[in-house]
Formats: sequence, C-alpha cells, structure tokens
Amino acid sequence: MKLAILGGGGVRIPLFVRGVLSRPGESFSEICLFEPDQARRETIGRLAVEVAAALGHRDVVTVTPDVEEAFTGADFVFSAIRVGGDRGRLIDEEVALRRGLVGQETTGPGGCAMALRTIPVVLSYCEALARYAPGAVLINFTNPAGLITQAISLYAAVRAVGVCDTPSGALDRLAEFTGAGRDEIGFSYAGLNHLGWISSFRVAGRECIGTLLDRYEELQRFDHRFAAFDPGFVRRLGAVPTEYDYYYYEPQRYVAAVAQAGASRGADVLRLNSGLLGDIAKAFEAGDVHDAWHAYFTQMRIRRSSYMRTDMAGEAMPLAGPAPTPAGADGHDATGHDLGPAGGGADRPGGYEGVALAVIAALTGRRPASVIVNTRNGASLPFLDPDDVVEVPAHIDGGGVAPLAGGALPRSARGLVTQVKEYEREVVSAAVTGDAERAALALALHPLVPGVTVAREMMSEYRERHGPDLAYLR
Amino acid sequence: MKLAILGGGGVRIPLFVRGVLSRPGESFSEICLFEPDQARRETIGRLAVEVAAALGHRDVVTVTPDVEEAFTGADFVFSAIRVGGDRGRLIDEEVALRRGLVGQETTGPGGCAMALRTIPVVLSYCEALARYAPGAVLINFTNPAGLITQAISLYAAVRAVGVCDTPSGALDRLAEFTGAGRDEIGFSYAGLNHLGWISSFRVAGRECIGTLLDRYEELQRFDHRFAAFDPGFVRRLGAVPTEYDYYYYEPQRYVAAVAQAGASRGADVLRLNSGLLGDIAKAFEAGDVHDAWHAYFTQMRIRRSSYMRTDMAGEAMPLAGPAPTPAGADGHDATGHDLGPAGGGADRPGGYEGVALAVIAALTGRRPASVIVNTRNGASLPFLDPDDVVEVPAHIDGGGVAPLAGGALPRSARGLVTQVKEYEREVVSAAVTGDAERAALALALHPLVPGVTVAREMMSEYRERHGPDLAYLR
Amino acid sequence: MKLAILGGGGVRIPLFVRGVLSRPGESFSEICLFEPDQARRETIGRLAVEVAAALGHRDVVTVTPDVEEAFTGADFVFSAIRVGGDRGRLIDEEVALRRGLVGQETTGPGGCAMALRTIPVVLSYCEALARYAPGAVLINFTNPAGLITQAISLYAAVRAVGVCDTPSGALDRLAEFTGAGRDEIGFSYAGLNHLGWISSFRVAGRECIGTLLDRYEELQRFDHRFAAFDPGFVRRLGAVPTEYDYYYYEPQRYVAAVAQAGASRGADVLRLNSGLLGDIAKAFEAGDVHDAWHAYFTQMRIRRSSYMRTDMAGEAMPLAGPAPTPAGADGHDATGHDLGPAGGGADRPGGYEGVALAVIAALTGRRPASVIVNTRNGASLPFLDPDDVVEVPAHIDGGGVAPLAGGALPRSARGLVTQVKEYEREVVSAAVTGDAERAALALALHPLVPGVTVAREMMSEYRERHGPDLAYLR
Amino acid sequence: MKLAILGGGGVRIPLFVRGVLSRPGESFSEICLFEPDQARRETIGRLAVEVAAALGHRDVVTVTPDVEEAFTGADFVFSAIRVGGDRGRLIDEEVALRRGLVGQETTGPGGCAMALRTIPVVLSYCEALARYAPGAVLINFTNPAGLITQAISLYAAVRAVGVCDTPSGALDRLAEFTGAGRDEIGFSYAGLNHLGWISSFRVAGRECIGTLLDRYEELQRFDHRFAAFDPGFVRRLGAVPTEYDYYYYEPQRYVAAVAQAGASRGADVLRLNSGLLGDIAKAFEAGDVHDAWHAYFTQMRIRRSSYMRTDMAGEAMPLAGPAPTPAGADGHDATGHDLGPAGGGADRPGGYEGVALAVIAALTGRRPASVIVNTRNGASLPFLDPDDVVEVPAHIDGGGVAPLAGGALPRSARGLVTQVKEYEREVVSAAVTGDAERAALALALHPLVPGVTVAREMMSEYRERHGPDLAYLR
Repeated sequence: MKLAILGGGGVRIPLFVRGVLSRPGESFSEICLFEPDQARRETIGRLAVEVAAALGHRDVVTVTPDVEEAFTGADFVFSAIRVGGDRGRLIDEEVALRRGLVGQETTGPGGCAMALRTIPVVLSYCEALARYAPGAVLINFTNPAGLITQAISLYAAVRAVGVCDTPSGALDRLAEFTGAGRDEIGFSYAGLNHLGWISSFRVAGRECIGTLLDRYEELQRFDHRFAAFDPGFVRRLGAVPTEYDYYYYEPQRYVAAVAQAGASRGADVLRLNSGLLGDIAKAFEAGDVHDAWHAYFTQMRIRRSSYMRTDMAGEAMPLAGPAPTPAGADGHDATGHDLGPAGGGADRPGGYEGVALAVIAALTGRRPASVIVNTRNGASLPFLDPDDVVEVPAHIDGGGVAPLAGGALPRSARGLVTQVKEYEREVVSAAVTGDAERAALALALHPLVPGVTVAREMMSEYRERHGPDLAYLR
Repeated sequence: MKLAILGGGGVRIPLFVRGVLSRPGESFSEICLFEPDQARRETIGRLAVEVAAALGHRDVVTVTPDVEEAFTGADFVFSAIRVGGDRGRLIDEEVALRRGLVGQETTGPGGCAMALRTIPVVLSYCEALARYAPGAVLINFTNPAGLITQAISLYAAVRAVGVCDTPSGALDRLAEFTGAGRDEIGFSYAGLNHLGWISSFRVAGRECIGTLLDRYEELQRFDHRFAAFDPGFVRRLGAVPTEYDYYYYEPQRYVAAVAQAGASRGADVLRLNSGLLGDIAKAFEAGDVHDAWHAYFTQMRIRRSSYMRTDMAGEAMPLAGPAPTPAGADGHDATGHDLGPAGGGADRPGGYEGVALAVIAALTGRRPASVIVNTRNGASLPFLDPDDVVEVPAHIDGGGVAPLAGGALPRSARGLVTQVKEYEREVVSAAVTGDAERAALALALHPLVPGVTVAREMMSEYRERHGPDLAYLR
Repeated sequence: MKLAILGGGGVRIPLFVRGVLSRPGESFSEICLFEPDQARRETIGRLAVEVAAALGHRDVVTVTPDVEEAFTGADFVFSAIRVGGDRGRLIDEEVALRRGLVGQETTGPGGCAMALRTIPVVLSYCEALARYAPGAVLINFTNPAGLITQAISLYAAVRAVGVCDTPSGALDRLAEFTGAGRDEIGFSYAGLNHLGWISSFRVAGRECIGTLLDRYEELQRFDHRFAAFDPGFVRRLGAVPTEYDYYYYEPQRYVAAVAQAGASRGADVLRLNSGLLGDIAKAFEAGDVHDAWHAYFTQMRIRRSSYMRTDMAGEAMPLAGPAPTPAGADGHDATGHDLGPAGGGADRPGGYEGVALAVIAALTGRRPASVIVNTRNGASLPFLDPDDVVEVPAHIDGGGVAPLAGGALPRSARGLVTQVKEYEREVVSAAVTGDAERAALALALHPLVPGVTVAREMMSEYRERHGPDLAYLR
Repeated sequence: MKLAILGGGGVRIPLFVRGVLSRPGESFSEICLFEPDQARRETIGRLAVEVAAALGHRDVVTVTPDVEEAFTGADFVFSAIRVGGDRGRLIDEEVALRRGLVGQETTGPGGCAMALRTIPVVLSYCEALARYAPGAVLINFTNPAGLITQAISLYAAVRAVGVCDTPSGALDRLAEFTGAGRDEIGFSYAGLNHLGWISSFRVAGRECIGTLLDRYEELQRFDHRFAAFDPGFVRRLGAVPTEYDYYYYEPQRYVAAVAQAGASRGADVLRLNSGLLGDIAKAFEAGDVHDAWHAYFTQMRIRRSSYMRTDMAGEAMPLAGPAPTPAGADGHDATGHDLGPAGGGADRPGGYEGVALAVIAALTGRRPASVIVNTRNGASLPFLDPDDVVEVPAHIDGGGVAPLAGGALPRSARGLVTQVKEYEREVVSAAVTGDAERAALALALHPLVPGVTVAREMMSEYRERHGPDLAYLR
C-alpha cells in the first residue's frame, strides 16, 4: 500500500512518520513525500527518512519534487499543504486583527484569504491525481479543511474526504472525563469543520449530555479546550461546543487576548519555525542526525503546549520548551526526544494523523468504523443541501463513506452553520471563477465580518499583500 | 365598530386619527385612547379629540386611563406602547454604542432591552383583553414588533397579529419605480420583523427581480431606503433587502455614522419630543387649538424627514423643519399644517396605520387582501418551527390570517433568520421566567453581539440603568 | 374583456353563459366559443347564443371552429374539452370495471387513459395560445384537472391555473351546516385535484373541525357528499375528506355499487347525452328556441340530481327528471326551465364556473380572494416538489396566484398524495414522450391498481380500444 | 456472555444453536431457551441441547419455562415468538385470501392480525426484561418485525433493535452477482421492514445501480428473489425492490398464484410442522438422537427450498425434500444431515441469526459495522417522524445504534412508506389501548385493503376466529 503526502516537507511530517511506523499492523510499503521546496526536502524530508530508518523501515520513505512520481501507484494521498507559508498566515491574521476583528488561520477573514490562495493549487493537484492514480482516495488535511474539501467535492474528479482531529479530540477527552471506555461511547456531533457541536454523549446507551453540562466547570478544569466557553451559555445551548467555536462565541475576547499577548498565533509560529529549518540543516551538515531530531522535536513540543493559549488566555508563546508531561496527557505523545519508536500514546495516535489512519483502515475494510469526517452532506443535515460538505460522523468501510443521520443541533447553531456554509460556497465560487468582487462579497457573508464595506477593504488589502498568490482574482 | 388604542397618548396618534377619519368608508363608531399618563392624555389625547371634532366626528374619540373602559366592547385593539419612554430608548442605544456596537431601538442589544421591558407589560394587557373583550383582535405595533408578537403568540390567549410598514413601504416604492400599478404586482417577501427580503417581484405575472437588481443603483437614487446597501452585494444575494437589514449588513458603517453624527436616533428623538408636550400644553392653555396642532405637526415632519439619515449617512437631525414636499412623495401625507382632512396620500395611508387598517378591512370580510404581517409561521417558512412568529404575506379575510407559502430566501438570509429567531425566543423565555441570566445569554445569541462576555456586561448595565423596568429579572 | 372557451360546445356551456350574463358586474364584452364539431356548434353553441340574446346581450357570444379567431384578443381562456367524448369515457371506465377495479372518469385507470388522450391536445392548444394571446390566463377545467394542469405547468409557456368546485362546494356546505357566513370561515384544505382533505375549519378564528367530526353523522344527513364515508374512519383521520376521496377509501364498495346499478356513470351519461343534440337540433329546425332550451335543461337536471348516486349508493340514473327542488339546495341553481335570467342561487354561482369567475375577478384585481386552485406547489406542501401541481387555497390578486402555506394533512393522506403525484408526473412524462411502456408503468403506480401485470393489461386494452386517440403512444 | 431466547422452542432454534456454536470466536457462555410449551421444550429444546453437546459445548444451552430465570444475567435477548402458532397464521392468511386479498403472514391483513395478537405479549416480556436484566439489549425477530419493534420502541423501557435478513440477503446476492467482495460494497437501503428498496449500490466507491438495473433480467435468472418483479417497472423505479415489495407491486398476481397452488404458505407450513414435533418426540423416545435430528433437518430443508414459491410462482410446497444443493448456494448452509458442525456457509451465517450475531458483535465493540436494522428513525428518513421505527443501515458499535442518513427513495416508495408507517402506528395504538374499532380503522389504512368496509369485516372475523388471542380488543 502506497501513501503519497502532498506537503511532505511540512513540519509535522517526521512526527507523523514516526507515529505511523511505530504502530503494529500498519502496512505501508511506501510513503512518498512530495515537496517542491528543496530546502524542506533536505531538512524535514531527510529527517523523515532518518526516522523511518531508525525504526527499521529503511526504504519505506521517499522524497520527491515530482508529482507524477509521487502519485503513481498511490492508494491514498494525504494533502497537507500551506500555500503562502507561515508568512502568508501572518498576513491573513494581521489584516483582520488590525481592524479589531478575529484574525485566525482558518476562521473568518484569515481563513477566507487562505482558502482563496489554496483552492486553485489543490484543484490542480486533484487533476494530476485523477490522471496518475484515478482510484486513489485523497485525505485532505489542508486548511481550512472544510472549505477545501468543499471545493474538491464540487470541482474535482477524485474520491476525497476531509479530516480534522478537533471533534474526535474533544470526544476522547469527554470519554476520559466520564471514565468511559472510548469504545462504549455513542454521540451526536454535527457542524462544519471548526464549527461543530456535540449534542449527545451516551455511555452504554445511556444519555449523559445533561450530566456533562451540569459538570461543565469541572470539565473545564479537566481540559483546557473547554475552558474558554461561558458555562452558563453552554448549558443553555444544550450541547458541548468544540474549541474553534470560541471564535464565534467570544470574538471580542479573542481580539483582546491577542492584543494582550502582543502577537497572534501566526506571528508566534512564524518566529518559531523561522530558525527550525536552519537548525536542522546545520545539524545534518555536522553529520549529527540526533541533534537534528532534537532541534525538531523541542520546537514541536513548544508549539503543541502553547496551542490556543494566545487566543484564549492572552499568553504569548514561550521560546523555551515546557517541562515534559506524561505521555498522552494532552492526547499526544510527549516522549521521544530520541529517534526511537513513539511512546504509549501512539496506540491511539492523536491529531489529524490518527484520524486519517483510522479512515484508511476503515476504507480498506480492515477496521470498519464511525469516524467524524468532512464529506458530502447527502441527507445528514436536512437544513443543508446534499452537495454541501459537512463535518459529521460517517460509517466508513470498504464500501465507502456514509454519513450518519445528523443529530439535533441547537437552533442558533443551525443558523450559524447555514450562514457559514453559504460563505464557504461563495468563496469556492469566487476561487474557481477567479472573481475578486465575488471574493469580497463572499467574505462579507461571514458572521465575523461586520459589513460589506469592511469586507471589501480587507479583500483589497489581501490581494495587495499576498501578491502572486491571489493575482488570479480579477 | 370600536377600536381601542393602547398607547393612545403616543405622538403619532393625532396624525393617525386624522388619517383614519379622513378616509371614506372607515366605520369606527368609537376610537378609545387608553393612556395612563395624565400629561399625555391632556396634550396628545386632547389633540386627537380636537382633530376628530374638526373633521366632524365629535364623539368618536375618547380618552381614558382605565383599561376596562378601553377594552370593553372593542372589536380591535391597537397596541403601540413604549415602556420606559424616549429616555429608555436612549439608554438602550447608548449601552451598545459605547462599546462600538449597533445601538438601535429594535435591533441588537437595544431591541433586546426594549423587549425585556415591554413583554411583561404587554402580556398583562393581553390578560385584561382576554377578560374584557375576548373576541377582539389585537393589532400589535409595539416594538420590537416581531419579538412582542412572538411573546403574545406563545403566552397570551388573544387573537393577535403584528404589523410593520417596512416591507409594504418598500414594495410600494418598487411598484412606483417600475411604473406598475400597486394592484398588479406579485411578490415574495419573507423574514422576521426588521429582517426581511423581497426575493421575487412580478408584474402581471412576469418576474422582474432580475431587472430590479440590474437597475439597483438607479433604484437607490429613486428612494433612500435602498441607498445604504452595497449594490454588488445585493445582486449577489439575489433579493432586495428591506431597510433594517442595513444594521446586519453594515454594522461597522452604522456605528461610524452615528459617531460622526454625534448622536443616535434615540437622542435626537428625545431632544425633539422633550419640548413637544410642553408646547402643546401651552397652546391649549392659551386656548389655541391651531397652535397646538401646528407645534405638533411641525415636529412630526422633522422626525419623518430625518428618518434613518443618522444611521446611514451620519447626518444629525435638524431642528428646523424641512421644506414642504409634495404629498405622497415619500409615501406619507405631507400636507396638513392645519387641522383639516388629510391630503391625497391618505387614500392609501402610509405607515403602520395604513397596514393596520388594511388588516381590519380584511378581517371584517370587507376587503380580503394579502398583507405582510407578523404571525405564526405554520408551514410558511419550512426551516422554522410552526409556532415561530414570522413576517410574511398572509391572506386575510373574515376567516382569519393564513400565511402564504414562503418564498425562497437567500441561504445566508435563512441562516440569519434562524439565528435571530432563536435569540427572540430566548428573550421571550427570559421575560416570562424573569431570569436575568437567561436574558444575558439570549442577548449573546444575537448576531450583532460579539460574544457572551460582552453580552453579560451589557445586560448588567441595562438592568442597572433601567431600574424598575427591568427589576423583575433576577 | 374577452373570454375564449375551449370546448365551447360542451353541454354545460349554455348554463354557464346564462349564469355569467345574469350576474351583475361581470364585464365580458365577448365570449367566444371554440368548437371544432359542427353539430355541437349548431346545437349547443347556438343555444348559448340564444340564451345571451334572451338576456339582452345579443352580440356577446360568438361561436367559431377557428382557434386563432378564438384566442386573438382573449384575456382569459377556459379549457373544458373532452377528447374522445362520452364514448371514450365509457371505454375508460369499462376496462377497469371489468377487472373489478374502480372505473371512474378522473381517478384510477379511467383517469389515466383520459389524461393520455388529452395531454397532447391541450398542449397543442397551449402552443396556439402562446402565439395568439401570450398574456392571457388559461383557466383549466379539463379533466383530470390536476393532471392536465400539471402537464401545462411543466410543458407549456402559458399562465395557467386549474379549477375544480369540489373543495369549495364542500366548504360551502360545511359553512351552511354550521350556520356560519361563508365570509367568516377560515380553513385548511390541501391535496391534489379529486384527492383533498379539509383539516381545519374555523369560524371567526375559532377551530371547529373537532365539532364537525363529532357531528359527522348529522353532517352526512345534511349533505349527500359526506354520506358515503365511514364516520369512525373520518374521525380517526381528523379531517373531512372531499367526495372523490371515496374512490380511495371504498374502492370495493364502489365496484359493488356500480355492479348493482348495472351501469357506470359514464354509461348513464352516454345514454343521456346521445339523444340530446338530436333533440335540440330538431327543436331548432322546428324554429322553437324554447323547446330546444327545455330539452336541454331537463337533461341537465337529471344529470345533476343523480350525481354520484350510482357510485355511492348503487342507484341507476333515472331517465325522467326529478321534481324541481328549491334554488340552491344542492348548491346549484334549479330554476330556469325558461330562458330567463338564472335564479337566486346564481348570486354565488355553484360549480366550476363559479370558481373560475372568482379567479378572474381576483386576477383582474377587482376582488382579491383566497380560492382553492390547482397550481404550482412552491413551498405549500413541503413533502412535495416545488413544481408539482397541487390543489390548495391560493391568494389571488392582480399580482397573480400565491399558494397559502399548506395545512397539516393526516399522515396517511400525505402518503397517498405523494404516491398519486408520482403517478401523475409519470403519466405526463409518458404523454410528452409518447412512450407506451412508460404509460403502463405509470398506471401501475396508481394506488387503485393492484399490480404491474394488470396495469400492462389495461394499458394494452386502452390503446387498442381508443384507437387513434392513443396511437401516438409507441 | 449470556443470551436468552424468547421462543426458544421455535423450529429454527436447533439450526441456530448449531450455527452459533460452530463459529469460531463466538463467546456465549450461556444460551437460555425460554419456552412455556412443554412439548416444545422436550423436542425442539432438547434437540438444541443435544446439538450443543455434539459440538462439545455441553453446558451452554439450557431450557426453561421461567422468564425470570431466562432473563436474569442476560446480556442479549432474542425475541422470536409466534403468538397463536401456525394455526393462527393460517387464519391470518385465510381471512384475506377468501376476499381475494393478499393473505400473508407479515404484510396486509394477516400482518395486522398477527401484530395485534403479539404486541401485548411482547410488551409484557419487555416489562419482565426491564425488571430482571435492565441493561440487556433485546434483538427482535418476532414478526411483523418492524411493527413489533415500533411497539417496543414507543411503549417499552428496554434497549431494542429489530432485525430481518431480507435486505442483507438481497445485498449479498447483488455482491455475488457483480463479483464484488461483500466488504467492498457500499449501498443505500431504506424503507420499513418488508418494504424496502436498494437505491444505490457502489463497488469501491463507483455507483453500479444503473448497471444492475440494465442487467435486471440476468439478475432475475441469477436469484429467484428478484424474479417476480417486472423488469421495466424496476428500471423505472430506479431502485432494486426487496422481495416482500412483491406483495405491494403484484397483489393480484399473488392472489392468483395462491389460488393456483391451492394453499397459502401458512397452510403449507402448518401441514409441514404438524408432524414434526411428534416425529422428534418419537425418535427421542426411541433413544435415537440422530433420527430426531434427521427428521428435523429434512423438514427444515423442504421449508427453505420452497420459500416464496407459492406466492410468486403458484407452486405448492412439496412434501419430500429437495435434492441436496451445494452449501451456501442460497445463502444458507445446506449440509448437515448429521449433528456435526455447520458447513462452509456458516462463516457468514445467513438468515436472521447471522444479522443478529453481527449486531451483537458490533454492540460489544468487537466488530463495529454497518448493519441494516429496524430502529428509531431520528433524522434518517426526513419525511418520517423521529420516533418512527424504520429499516435502514445503522452504524453499530459499543456506543449503540446510529442510523445512517437515508438514501434517496423513489418518490412512489416514499408515499407507500409514509402510508404504511401510519398504518403501523395505528395498529400499535389500537393494541396498547385495546380498542377494536381503532384496530379495524388501522387496517383500513393499509394500501392492500380496498376500503374501510372490508377492513371492518375482516377485523370482525379475525376477532371471532382468533378467540382469546384478540379478546382484549373491545
């Protein structure tokens, strides 16, 4: 089984490779990292190769700048690209933040700009995929994942499914909180990517959502992802919002938090990543693979540990790493300063990768499962159209992806989802028609944008500052 | 036929009485103005009596502070009250504006505070109505009209319908713009009060909405109520928004406009009205009925002519009256500095009153008609619940009010309407349970409120500043 | 205002002309009867001319075999044709009855065959209408009225509305039964033509459907159209079925009744009509206009008085006329053995014509009204498609026809309506594609047809026996 | 893990026990057969015990007449009872057949009578279950399975799911027909029990339903369950009907076939079973376990091989057994004249039992799967109510049963399903209220019953002939 990875030089890739190859039973005979950037191939890409070798899989990982080579023979393709890079993200966020608006990578104006840069690139990869590996399944991580999957679903001739670990991460933590085994919980989750709610949580068939809401303050202390929401508000909703809903429920607090921190997440990440490739390159030049890994791993831990701290608590990202935490405490493997196999948390690998591997295991028929994915709605959420891409649990097996019948969303959430989906579809339309006016008007539909006038202003500024990446919009 | 008016001392009443009694064919044998405030009874109330007398209907208009007297024998009741008065409105708007948010009488935080003050009062009048005139129909103008009608519909045992002239006003102007007779147009309109869209406009069966959208800039020059919207955005919507949608589509511009004007509409109105009752009282003391009328009429014209100028264009309200305009130019009678009958425009009286009289004529079976009203949804808008109150055209005749099947709203509008309706129902629930926490959380659901935290802050401030009017919330 | 009538030589036309021209306020300057059959022009057509003359409208009625002449200048067109004539109807009914199935003009196999004969003819008239009078409104009586209007709505470029007096007739009688004025009742009615239910009946805003159901046996004695239904069943439905629902609720009893009567309605009508034209012709030859009218009028009364007696009670149609009944007792004018103006019942003319005239008065803007018509569903019945033609109340005024939001049908009725509508659409598809196989399979979808095999057999027999009228099906 | 079986003396039980205990990996430590009838305990029950012993599971199977003993400690309960026995079934069918109507065990009048006998009995077992094993899951096979599961779902406080092998059997055969592996097919199936359609069939993500319909005649030769349908009709439907739909699509042909065969299925089964218990008893008396098994097994094969032959082809059931067929040819194990382990087909055990075991494996979390079950609709079929029990694929895992979003049913099927579901709910209501009138009117709603009058007649006859079993209806 061959896996190709678009964005094979992304910073998370070595960790991902380590995670996959540490798992018993995974059977990738080839993992081909596609990466057009030479520096990334020679640092991140090489690190991934070394990790595989250290785990005894010497020839499994390959690195290539050639898309035909990457796709040919692939059974599955991961897409995890970032058009415009960390600097693009910084612009995305700044344009909004300067106006006192939510400036975030995937949500609001920032997500709109990112999507507009990304859609044409992803669709051209899809064309190549349809040519070189027509039977392959594309698993999309590229953000904003829902919007990009919507574009693929409407305009590409490939089988595709979008994944995000936000909802499964929340459900894992709810299961831990209640003491239930992950295998005995049932739930209703629905929404769009980064805009979802858990409206039912059952243990062995018994509904526990009421108890969870009653104990919400306790839950907030248990896990930070629930900490930012107003408990009374959540109880009134009658559903547990997932973490990105925060941008919709507390935009003003978010903006204040960023101002207090003095920098956005994007600025932090840019600062953090900027030295990383150089450090790895230097270590490789010095012939020290372990130093390269150490430099890499330390920064990844800083990144993880500070996740959403800026947005919710106004804390700036630290430059030194946090103290080691017990494996799995935040749902992620925290050992591994060395190149050895991933630690205990890897049994259920956290993050996007864990979800993606579950999707693959299910699609091959090995482990049918219900997985929350971004997929064509069909009749899952009756208030949306069948060809809207939604984020819902789907039964996945060798026969494909079949969304479950949607749970009952709170009505205000239904309104929000309806409106954001319309925004998303208009962004996709603007991208495929290359229509700058339409792009600005699409942005104006976003609930976090206070008016058409400011939407037009921001879109002008994005087009100016993103230069060639948005030059196709006319 | 007896008509009772709750809020019979409101400033629009004398004009209304003049309008009604100038119309041929109206057959009110009694118009009873209910007004608990003595000063208003003796100025506005007396002015209404004088107007009737001047038109030859000496005994038709009565004024009373007694609700039993007002209701007994009534066939129809108009409700047009303002709990907290002009000063209350000023607070409603200020609390929001100070935070850079839309501060408006009926929409957003201001509308929420107004509704919370008003619902208990209206429901107690409904109880009296059910007792003293169980067969009467209540025609609700009291703002926020949709929200108040929702409260009545869910919690009162009276027949009620809510009216607002915004949509019919827009349709009248579209008819004039296209040169079509008002009687040959067909249309689709749907939404909530102060949140509605015209999605189809047919002349003699032929769809003209596309042409209207193509000519939107021309339409904007033709009538100011269309002027504030972005033409490209409106064309993309595919529907003509009505004027209050402006607060949702340009909140930032609105806030900037108010800042530029230096005062909100509420402040202007307060300033304007504050002297009015004194002036009228003085004129009556001096025995000069005509002076009283003149003082009254001049101020009403200033008010009308400046309507929405502040909000949309940042113009402050003038203190001197505008030059007389030809009758009917803005859909309203503009003659009448004297007490004589209302001028030509009165054949189709503009404003709330015209709609209300059309409802009465239809309900009596005299002139069945399709009128846009606020009424129980039933199956009109399938994405809402049957007992949600919506603003849609309804066929009205002796058999009652039957909403037409809803037209196709733009999807982003569907989202907005769904969300605002949830907000409205939560406000109603907070009011009938007297739950302050719920009131704050209801406000947090409003699309113009950027977060739960700020909603809680505003609700605290409203409760503090509105004193006894909101003291029932605990 | 010019009215053209397709099927101007139909037996009801002289009565219709008399009814229209006896009404004060109707303002047809021309009524042009289009009739290709010479014998009918010279008997029925001439009778209509004579009636008009006797009422003092000498030049109003014209008769023509030329469709261009008929349509040119028309404002409204009535369509009331019967392709295949009375003999065709007889075949329609016999083919089904011989198999122990419901053999009825508009419902079940008979209606299917009739529709297949009629659709191509009606659509070709529509083409002519679009050419000669593109602004005219077609008012369709041609049976099966719902199915034919469905064909026009999908495949013709004319404004059209279908009418039937069944539901309004039932409502009139319910109003009389309750003692309510026709102008003070409100109601919910929904379904398809000849398949409808009254699920709400309000007097002055108060729901009375429960009372009506409690008193259903009394209602059955009051009016025969309610007599055939099982009262317990009706009460369980929670809605009053209209008379044609009988064929769905008692098919076996209907078949037994026809067997007992020894002839179907079609056979009776054929027997009755066969001598009529000859009798009229003879009277005209003898120069005796009054004899012609008398022959005509007597037979029309036999026909009316025996309506549905065969189907429900197994009574054969009498050959002699019934004793005169008081005007209006059955909702129809029963005086008029002479050519004078129509009697008292004519103020609200019963029958199809009354409904059609109400539609015209509303469409001209003179008398906006809610009328039950067959029209495009839009969002009226949410379980059907927007372009399905349904039978619901619609607000009609100068702007056109706007269906009211559908009332709540009993769920079993929803199932029946869904299925019959699918049958109807397949019949229309078969007709426009000329596909005999599809026609047979369409028939198999009808709830009164016990299987595909028998549907194929019947369709073969219809094609054989109807000869040229169905020869286009291949 | 303990499994209790209601109806533990049913004729299929020994085969079931053999199937289960032959499977590797099944882990029932106890299978307790509850059977109130002593003769059945001593023949069928004992045979099951012997089968288990022969397979080396000496103490696994127990037999009891005590419901507390059966339920206590149970994790899962199968319900497979037949109130009124084979003789009751014969009456059910005869009453309808004598009137020329479909007389079938689960569909139409027969199913209605069976449900009315069964619901009170099943609900009383549910009460016992809630008391003695509140955490257990009830897996309902008792027919009519959808209707009974509806009753349990609305009126019992137990976790329950209904199973039927009809849809999975059809899907298995379609997979074999296309040559696809069972694990690589995806599909849409929806409807009610014994009224379902396969509207999508995908192999490795590619839609094949069109191909299947094109090749339908070939499919009919491949498997008899598709043989009875009209291929043109099926193609027009655009979906593959499952075998019981035949009663709805060819009722007249069915009735003719039964008449030709001279006896209904029920009569055949009664004739067949009547000697069985005696034969087994005699063999046991003679001490010959193998003779007992042989007598049993031979009759079971006759029964299986003649399944639906009478109904569709008018063939009488043979009394001698058919020639042995290769294992698995009809999806069922056909070897096993001896007591040894079940043959090759047992890897995927066909029939109800296979589905039930898949449900158990999924619910324990061992093998999550999508299984077609009868369960609460939720939002799966949007045209039905959330608490309607429907037959749809559901994702089942340790968290419970979550229906997939419904596929697109043909519209005529939607109508049929809506109507039959209403019938089912009325039957349930009649049973729980003990209302004989309501029972008759419920039957009148069934699409295969031609009228209220005949429904009343049949219900009278059922009540008379079923004696004590229906005496609770008043």
